[in-house]
Amino acid sequence: MSTLTLHDAQNVMAAAAKRADEVGQPVNIAVVDAGGNLRAHIRQDGAWIGSVDIAIKKAWTSRAFDIQTRDLGENAQPTQQFYGIHGTNDGKVIIFAGGVPLRRGDAVIGGLGVSGGSGEQNQTIAEAGLAVLQEFA
Amino acid sequence: MSTLTLHDAQNVMAAAAKRADEVGQPVNIAVVDAGGNLRAHIRQDGAWIGSVDIAIKKAWTSRAFDIQTRDLGENAQPTQQFYGIHGTNDGKVIIFAGGVPLRRGDAVIGGLGVSGGSGEQNQTIAEAGLAVLQEFA
Amino acid sequence: MSTLTLHDAQNVMAAAAKRADEVGQPVNIAVVDAGGNLRAHIRQDGAWIGSVDIAIKKAWTSRAFDIQTRDLGENAQPTQQFYGIHGTNDGKVIIFAGGVPLRRGDAVIGGLGVSGGSGEQNQTIAEAGLAVLQEFA
Amino acid sequence: MSTLTLHDAQNVMAAAAKRADEVGQPVNIAVVDAGGNLRAHIRQDGAWIGSVDIAIKKAWTSRAFDIQTRDLGENAQPTQQFYGIHGTNDGKVIIFAGGVPLRRGDAVIGGLGVSGGSGEQNQTIAEAGLAVLQEFA
Repeated sequence: MSTLTLHDAQNVMAAAAKRADEVGQPVNIAVVDAGGNLRAHIRQDGAWIGSVDIAIKKAWTSRAFDIQTRDLGENAQPTQQFYGIHGTNDGKVIIFAGGVPLRRGDAVIGGLGVSGGSGEQNQTIAEAGLAVLQEFA
Repeated sequence: MSTLTLHDAQNVMAAAAKRADEVGQPVNIAVVDAGGNLRAHIRQDGAWIGSVDIAIKKAWTSRAFDIQTRDLGENAQPTQQFYGIHGTNDGKVIIFAGGVPLRRGDAVIGGLGVSGGSGEQNQTIAEAGLAVLQEFA
Repeated sequence: MSTLTLHDAQNVMAAAAKRADEVGQPVNIAVVDAGGNLRAHIRQDGAWIGSVDIAIKKAWTSRAFDIQTRDLGENAQPTQQFYGIHGTNDGKVIIFAGGVPLRRGDAVIGGLGVSGGSGEQNQTIAEAGLAVLQEFA
Repeated sequence: MSTLTLHDAQNVMAAAAKRADEVGQPVNIAVVDAGGNLRAHIRQDGAWIGSVDIAIKKAWTSRAFDIQTRDLGENAQPTQQFYGIHGTNDGKVIIFAGGVPLRRGDAVIGGLGVSGGSGEQNQTIAEAGLAVLQEFA
């Protein structure tokens, strides 16, 4: 499997940060590798301190289950098939929008997490980030 | 950004405590600074020991996300955009009424948390506290 | 057993704070009641944020074992009879100077913790605090 | 107090990363702000995954106590005045070399943590980072 380098992580984060600037919403941005371990993180000026943890955990979640956290969330509501999953893995599972798997070709090589805006803002910022690796795969 | 001093914290807490006395409901009152770190805390005579932790975490939450915990709670219900946020940040996120950001001018310089009464009681006590800094801003 | 009131706690903390000012060392000061639960806390301007936790835990430790943390520490060094005790109680046990039991008459009614200075500074500040209850017992 | 910006954090980290490359030792590098909250982190290619946590906690520790972790470590050995401090603050206190406070003028505005090499390597890499803010203060 192709490995996610620090250079990859920083390119992904730069694209996400650029989109956050366009949206006008400061955020936390985090990238983990295929092992779910943190590669890089930034907190933009003015972004919430409570979102540091959430951005890192969104990145972890999206790699841990190879799924966008928004999609996992739909299955994690009361009465749905994965309800309660947010209490597993020592609280590392996030079930709202902003986390996306990072792919090169068909392989998931990491995860990207964005936190600090609304669900929609976080999602669009994360999508700007993941596009970087997919374009140059 | 203007710093929240211990003197500020004690003024805020005195106003909240006075309101708690008027309401007739003993509570825990806590103030954190802009970094989310505890500045001061009191547990009034007769207030719950289980509310020490909650008051401190309400203060933290309201600064960590620059939002009243009551309002965060509305966005954290099942099917809402931040459902599951109460499980993040090692359990420090409180999603019911009683936490409010402390502002001087436009800047959030800390957070105030009140716990021990009903949601309405905690809210009115917290509002009495935050008014102190806003009046003299 | 005579109960430690918030008024008591605040008198103890005021005396400790006054001594800290004389020493010229800003500190965190915390008081717990007979149940080991936090009654009040202040972080003086300029005091370390890492000492919030330590001051509270010193107060708890000194009540939990009815002993000054300095004295407990002597028994908690490698090869001594309580070596390893700092890993018990979920890490709440502090084994260096600055925590003292609070007594009224013969009864231990709480604990006081001071953190932010050297061991000697914390000890003298804590002693100024505990003297308040003993004088008026 | 002058605030540490993301731009500051990234300049500090770039200087530390450059020194790590010269030393030939890949490391984790983390920066926190004055409140002890994470501003940015990188894990260089080949650096230990077990050092992510340590780098972040070294940065926190050096700000939480306004001291280099190497110096704190000397006071935290058995029989010394702060022995046991590494068990406080929920295990966030690191007592070996690699964490340094970040200053602008006289004010501590954050902390820098480096982990992945020997104590000496981490220290020299951290020193290259902190010099950035001091030069342009």
